[in-house]
Amino acid sequence: MFSPPPSWTQQLPKPDVLRIRQATDRQQVLTKPPGSLGQLEQLAIQLSGLQVMDQPTVDPIQITVFAGDHGVCEEGVSAFPQEVTAQMIANFAGGGAAISVLAKQLGASLEVVNLGTVGDVPVLAGVRNESIAPATANLAITMAMTEDQAYAALTSGDAVAERAANAGCRLFIGGDMGIGNTTSAAAMACALLNEAPQQLVGPGTGLDTAGVSHKSTVVGRALERHGDNMDPLAVLASLGGFEIAGLTGAILGCAARGIPVLVDGFIVSVAALLGMRQQPGLRDWLLFAHRSAEPGHARVLEAMNANPLLDLGMRLGEGSGAAVAVPLLRAACALHNNMASFSDAGVSNKNATS
Amino acid sequence: MFSPPPSWTQQLPKPDVLRIRQATDRQQVLTKPPGSLGQLEQLAIQLSGLQVMDQPTVDPIQITVFAGDHGVCEEGVSAFPQEVTAQMIANFAGGGAAISVLAKQLGASLEVVNLGTVGDVPVLAGVRNESIAPATANLAITMAMTEDQAYAALTSGDAVAERAANAGCRLFIGGDMGIGNTTSAAAMACALLNEAPQQLVGPGTGLDTAGVSHKSTVVGRALERHGDNMDPLAVLASLGGFEIAGLTGAILGCAARGIPVLVDGFIVSVAALLGMRQQPGLRDWLLFAHRSAEPGHARVLEAMNANPLLDLGMRLGEGSGAAVAVPLLRAACALHNNMASFSDAGVSNKNATS
Repeated sequence: MFSPPPSWTQQLPKPDVLRIRQATDRQQVLTKPPGSLGQLEQLAIQLSGLQVMDQPTVDPIQITVFAGDHGVCEEGVSAFPQEVTAQMIANFAGGGAAISVLAKQLGASLEVVNLGTVGDVPVLAGVRNESIAPATANLAITMAMTEDQAYAALTSGDAVAERAANAGCRLFIGGDMGIGNTTSAAAMACALLNEAPQQLVGPGTGLDTAGVSHKSTVVGRALERHGDNMDPLAVLASLGGFEIAGLTGAILGCAARGIPVLVDGFIVSVAALLGMRQQPGLRDWLLFAHRSAEPGHARVLEAMNANPLLDLGMRLGEGSGAAVAVPLLRAACALHNNMASFSDAGVSNKNATS
Repeated sequence: MFSPPPSWTQQLPKPDVLRIRQATDRQQVLTKPPGSLGQLEQLAIQLSGLQVMDQPTVDPIQITVFAGDHGVCEEGVSAFPQEVTAQMIANFAGGGAAISVLAKQLGASLEVVNLGTVGDVPVLAGVRNESIAPATANLAITMAMTEDQAYAALTSGDAVAERAANAGCRLFIGGDMGIGNTTSAAAMACALLNEAPQQLVGPGTGLDTAGVSHKSTVVGRALERHGDNMDPLAVLASLGGFEIAGLTGAILGCAARGIPVLVDGFIVSVAALLGMRQQPGLRDWLLFAHRSAEPGHARVLEAMNANPLLDLGMRLGEGSGAAVAVPLLRAACALHNNMASFSDAGVSNKNATS
């Protein structure tokens, strides 16, 4: 018998009010017009409050990609075959995937947690095989997973957060890999936000118009079966994916351990939204990297009152959008920590007379 | 007697069509859904064509901040005193300014070219004193500079490009420092785009509503004096600033020498717009870093058909917005150069049957 990890219910920590005030004051005296660094100022202030540090930093960074297959693929909802999930795990480990290239460039630690794929995954360095089942059940016709399976995936995610905390991680990025997972995420978002499938279903990896329409019908069938239950665990078990559950567990687990989370695109945002419905205090710990080209992402971001840093038309998943945004956080920290003040640099401030 | 640098009139090079086609093809076979890296794909393709390289790169990077004072400051158009221009040059050299912090973090070469300040600038490492005059004349009542002064500033800018080319620079960023220069840039943009001051004048370093209104009146007086002459050299001499002219010279000079330019905010964009009016082929060489919070920037970007990478509410100048965007270019190059193809990684492509 399983149970959810403690972070599912325990009180999450709050940002440090004193550090936020001190960081806000510091931004006013650096040699620039106040406010002229825009969102970079807010990032530094937020990180200072979350990390309880005068000099915020995002390093070391942990990137964990959760992978899992989806029974709903038998409905023909993806442009790519299901075998790609397992193949891409090998590509992550081999360094050829986008997130592999980005993690290397960032000097970030990258691991893959495989929660269950239809294809075989050999033993690979950097890949943890924690398979729950070869795939979820087909959510169009039945619960995607049992409560125990959902607990197991949440717990795998929480263990990621525990390892990240033990390694001194200062920023967590979760990524996703799972053919069919935009179908699951759209269904979850519809259930959590009480939206119609047409509002949140999109092309995913590249469906055409007819494909998107069919995918909407499939999500509609799932929602009809599911009903109007908005309980986070019920939504997760009924409509989720193993990798999405793992992400929710990791995100909540990081917040519980004082690690800020840089949220990637549609899939990770839905995992974060689910976490917020369980624990509203999670919102404090989230930074938002980018707005995905997947059309449902905008609505999910809006539901979290999120204003992401980037809008580059990315829609790859894997945590890639978050990885691309990391240097913006590093820049925000460097500016906050290393710029001179007006008095230090002998520069006249705005209120001085010329 | 001065004359403009050769890049003012000589034919600019064109992007390499073969490399653009090859890079476009490569993006189709990397292990991701085609198009899923959004603007990052276009960046890599554009850089490949400009640099005539299969593996584009942005390093080494040259960042040059042009500084100059503005006679129009006597009209009370800035929230900061004029002495700040010279003080900030010392701050750039001392490492305390935003662009200093960012250049160091990027490992980019940073230099300051002082084209004329009211305050004294001592001899400082990293600062070239190429003063044309202590400041431009007050553009509200007379020509900001003579043609010879404009040529001198353009030539200083071209010399920056020449040094960058000799150093093997792969990406150029120009920055600006000059109290009062949003007034000059707004006047230039109004003249080039036939817009009213109210459309392009903004708060700059932090004017209040009354201050912006007064600044609009000052720009209106300048435009009435200037008339409807859209000739780039006439606009530059009549309404420009030394640092803006230096930027135009550097941007054209980099394009002439095959170096892509990452355009910063409002001031640099106006310098680039002026260069494009002189040489429409310049557009090929421009990448756009960010949309400034300075309201006139959007109109200037639109006139160049530019879709910048970032929109973070920055409005600092110095080249800081461009510096913050550099890692996006680096990510685009790394992904393009280092990701595995479907066949290399043994991953099934979209058209495979499952």
